[in-house]
Parts: sequence; structure tokens; C-alpha cells
Amino acid sequence: MYFIEQLVQLIKEKRSVVSMGLDPRMDKEGEIPKYLIDEYDNPDKIILEFNKELIEDTCDLIPVVKPQIAFYEKYEALDALKETIKYAHKKDLLVILDSKRNDIGSTSEAYAYSTFKNFNADACTINAYLGIDCVKPFLEYKEKGLFVLVKTSNPSSSDFQNLFSTRIEDVPDEKFEYKVENKILKRNYINMAELVREWSIPLQKFNSFGNLGAVVGATYPNELREIRNIMKSSFILIPGYGAQGAQAKDIKYGFFEKGFGGIVNSSRGIIYAYSRSKKFTEKEFTKAARDEIIDMNQKINKEIGI
Amino acid sequence: MYFIEQLVQLIKEKRSVVSMGLDPRMDKEGEIPKYLIDEYDNPDKIILEFNKELIEDTCDLIPVVKPQIAFYEKYEALDALKETIKYAHKKDLLVILDSKRNDIGSTSEAYAYSTFKNFNADACTINAYLGIDCVKPFLEYKEKGLFVLVKTSNPSSSDFQNLFSTRIEDVPDEKFEYKVENKILKRNYINMAELVREWSIPLQKFNSFGNLGAVVGATYPNELREIRNIMKSSFILIPGYGAQGAQAKDIKYGFFEKGFGGIVNSSRGIIYAYSRSKKFTEKEFTKAARDEIIDMNQKINKEIGI
Repeated sequence: MYFIEQLVQLIKEKRSVVSMGLDPRMDKEGEIPKYLIDEYDNPDKIILEFNKELIEDTCDLIPVVKPQIAFYEKYEALDALKETIKYAHKKDLLVILDSKRNDIGSTSEAYAYSTFKNFNADACTINAYLGIDCVKPFLEYKEKGLFVLVKTSNPSSSDFQNLFSTRIEDVPDEKFEYKVENKILKRNYINMAELVREWSIPLQKFNSFGNLGAVVGATYPNELREIRNIMKSSFILIPGYGAQGAQAKDIKYGFFEKGFGGIVNSSRGIIYAYSRSKKFTEKEFTKAARDEIIDMNQKINKEIGI
Repeated sequence: MYFIEQLVQLIKEKRSVVSMGLDPRMDKEGEIPKYLIDEYDNPDKIILEFNKELIEDTCDLIPVVKPQIAFYEKYEALDALKETIKYAHKKDLLVILDSKRNDIGSTSEAYAYSTFKNFNADACTINAYLGIDCVKPFLEYKEKGLFVLVKTSNPSSSDFQNLFSTRIEDVPDEKFEYKVENKILKRNYINMAELVREWSIPLQKFNSFGNLGAVVGATYPNELREIRNIMKSSFILIPGYGAQGAQAKDIKYGFFEKGFGGIVNSSRGIIYAYSRSKKFTEKEFTKAARDEIIDMNQKINKEIGI
């Protein structure tokens, strides 16, 4: 079954568009609870136990989890990542591997293999600065989902993504500069969104959505609305809710009227929720995560009307 | 000692600007020799042995090796990568980890930690679509080198990198389009080169070069020349020599008059050279690699005048 078909089905079943970001950290207080770090003797076991407990106690509330591979690389805990994905599948969750891989030819093929065969992720994020050569090997896995970075949630995303640009055909490659007269330019991220739309045209659609989606930060609601209008057949993965400051009202523009089209991720905001409230001890971290998801579901569903 | 200082010193000592790309593959004939695959019982051992033999027999001819992490991920052989880097250091080689990582905040910190602490690479490649937020955590490792993707070697690099763009200050964020009259636009990769130049200004320099460099494909010699002129204090990592079709005459524009400023990478062209010539058996793969490097050094040094 195709990723996007499964995603739409799970969103309907669970009445949730929330993705729980599984970003394991254990460098300071308020991250993975100390009692778990003391109980297990290596990062693989600590992280796997942390993730399994979170998944076990929240899987009825969410359609998808999003592990960020950087943290598993940092703690040399890629086995924990693999086992986490296996466990998430057992609990009827989809898994978006946040890896932002980008390369070309056989190297891109190797990344796609690693993502979809070794880790068995259902979808992943990619960075398409290198063009379609980077995307194609991932699209070969027809049943899998892809989210291309369009407008990222960070402050400096404007450095490059906000340049105004245009494609000018018939200009020889050796021309590095070009003088335009009376030309409408669009932000670089808008041009990236249009590229993704173009790449997604030939792909199979379900409920009008294809497996090729985009990443747009919740921290940029106006941009999200504009990109939503451009990419009619793409799901948008919307990070930046919670810890990065965005709220339910900011993400509504990522959705169509029927309440589909977006997935809202929160990582720290959910998994370390216990550390922000005196209501919970560290042993109750999954209870705090559950409360936070329930709160997100309520607030978001109200905004998007599902 | 700073990466770029070591690099300049090794280039002088060895009279070579060649980087050997360590891209282990074992899916078809002409890749890692079959006798090695038969001799060892797992990918980690096979790949490590392959890399060690290559390094052992070529380390006097080159300053640097560039492992492509995608292949180590594909074969789940990250231990081989770590051990390869250790061995390369023992043999007085620098290591550029080709990983094109890109993320923000603590996630980017985690990638930098993984690259420089876990793997102990001397430098790495990154993709700066996300702006300075992605670059900063890597720059915290002041002694390490960085190569930001500017113009990549693949055919579809033009999809996005060749758009014509410009920064227009004082336009409110909510404006997605902007009409210009009589404006000079530059290719997106030129604007990326200018960003990298801007980011490198405050950094320490050695022999006029800083630790923040760029990646520009040898397959685009005119673009290489233009970018060289923009980035006066950056080393350029130039992939695409050999298997991707570029020759010595194509890379000369990446260098300054004194013969510094570039590193020319060839992966398949060197490490699987044995399979392109009847002169060598598969057991002689390091001899073939050595011959290929000697040939590259001769041809390239003639062009760049060292």
C-alpha cells in the first residue's frame, strides 16, 4: 500500500495529523529521564526503551512518528533507530525518517537503499538543491513517501530560500549574470515548490495526493499558505510546532478545507513535555507526552476542521 | 593544527592535489574484487580491507581521501568507515567525509558531533539550503574544514542552482513575488558562492585560505572559473574527474596561479581502475589505483603548474 494512502487512512481513523518527533537527547536535564539512563548500560538500549515507551503509550493518538537520524548518529545508536521503526510498525504507526539526504546517481541510490531497505522507513525528508538527480532514486521506491525541503522553520532559512529568482530559458550556461527588464521574480522557496509540483505530476495519486510532499516550517504561516496553494497534490510536513514557537493557528494554512494535506510535527514539545510541568515526575514522561498530544490534537483539529 | 594548514602542507610535500574517493560498492563486477568478498565474512571487514590496501599503496601520492558515507550506510558498515579514517590518519592522510549533512540548531550540532567526534573526520561536505543555521554548529569545530555545495557535478544541478536570482532588501516577508525593472540577476550558485564568501570573512586564514570551502563539479569548468574568482579565500573541492567525464584541462580554473586552491576528487576512476584495463588482475587493484593517481598527478600538475 502506498505511503500517502496509508497516511490518509490513519489520519481518518485516529483523527490526528500530529507527528511525534523522536529526537533522543541525553546531554542535559529535562531530556531522556535520568532513571532510564541509569537503568540501561548503553545508548542503544536507553534510546530504544525511551522510544518504545513513548510509542506504546501514544500510538492510539497519532498516525506517524518522525525520528531525526542525526541524534541516532550522534549517540551511535542506529540499531535503536532500526528497532524503533520496527516497533512503530508493530503499533500501526507510519515512520518518516528525517535525514535530509541529498546526492546524485549511485550515491543517491545508496541513500535510498539505506532509508527504505535497511531502516524500512515509510518516508523520508530530502534536500533537492541538487535537482531531480537527487530525488529520482528515492522515487524508484514507488510505495514510499518523500518530503522535499521547501521553506525550513529556522530563522536563517531566509539567507538563501528568500532570494527572488526566476528561470530564464535560452540563456547559455556560460552566462552567470543576466539583466532583466520588467520581470516578475518569485522567492527561491516558491521556485522550489514549483519544481516539486512539476516532479510530482507524473506520479500516482490517492485522494488527490501523491507520495511526493514538501517540508514547510510552521514558523512561517504566510509562506505555508502560499506554498499550499501551489502544491495541490502534495502533503506538507510542518515542523516547528511547540518548542520552535508555532501554534495551532499558524499551521491551519497548510491544510485544505477537508482537513487533509498536512502533518504537524513536534519533537521536544511532546517527548520532553514532562520537564516543563510540575504535574509530572520523570517516570511519567509518556503520560506528559500523551497529554501534550491530546492538547495538540484538540487545538489543531479545531483549526483545520476535522 | 587547522585543516587547511595541514592540507596546504601535504599538497606541497606530496606535490598532489588529488583526493581518492573511497566509495565501496559490491553489487556488480568491476567493483570491490570478488576475492576480497569471498575472503571476509561481512561487509565491515571486506570494506575495511579494501580501503586499507588502497590507502597503504597510495598514501605517498595523495594528501587526502574522501569516503562517501552513503555507501557505508548502505552496507551497514559504519565501523569500517571509522576504522578507515583511523588508518588514513596513521598514514598521514587527511579525511574529508562526504556526507552533505544539513539541518538546524541542536540537530545540526548532533551531525557535527557525529562527523568530527565519532568519526574524527578532518573536514566534511554540507548543503547550505537552510542558511547559516546549518553551517554554524560545524564552524564551532574551529580546526576542522567544511565544503559547502555550490555547483554540483550532475546534469540536473541546473534545475535549481542555475535559476537567476537576487537579494532584494526591504521587501516584507509576505511578498512572494516582486517585479523588477532593470536588475542584474546572478545564477543561484553564484549567490550561494557569495554567501559562503560572506560567512568565511570572519574566519582565521592560513596562506590566505580559510577552513570554509566549496564544492564545484569538474564537469562545469566555466562555472568553476567564475566561482574561483568570487571565493578568493576558499579551497574548492572538485568532484567529477574521471568516471563523470571531466579531464585535467577542465579543473585548472579551480586553482590560483601558484597551484593552490583546489582538491580534485576521483572515486570510481581510481579505486576500480583495475576493471578498465587488461593490464591488471583483480588482485592488483591497488597497483591500478596507483597508476591512475600517478597519471592524474602528472596531468593535473602540468595544468596547474605545481
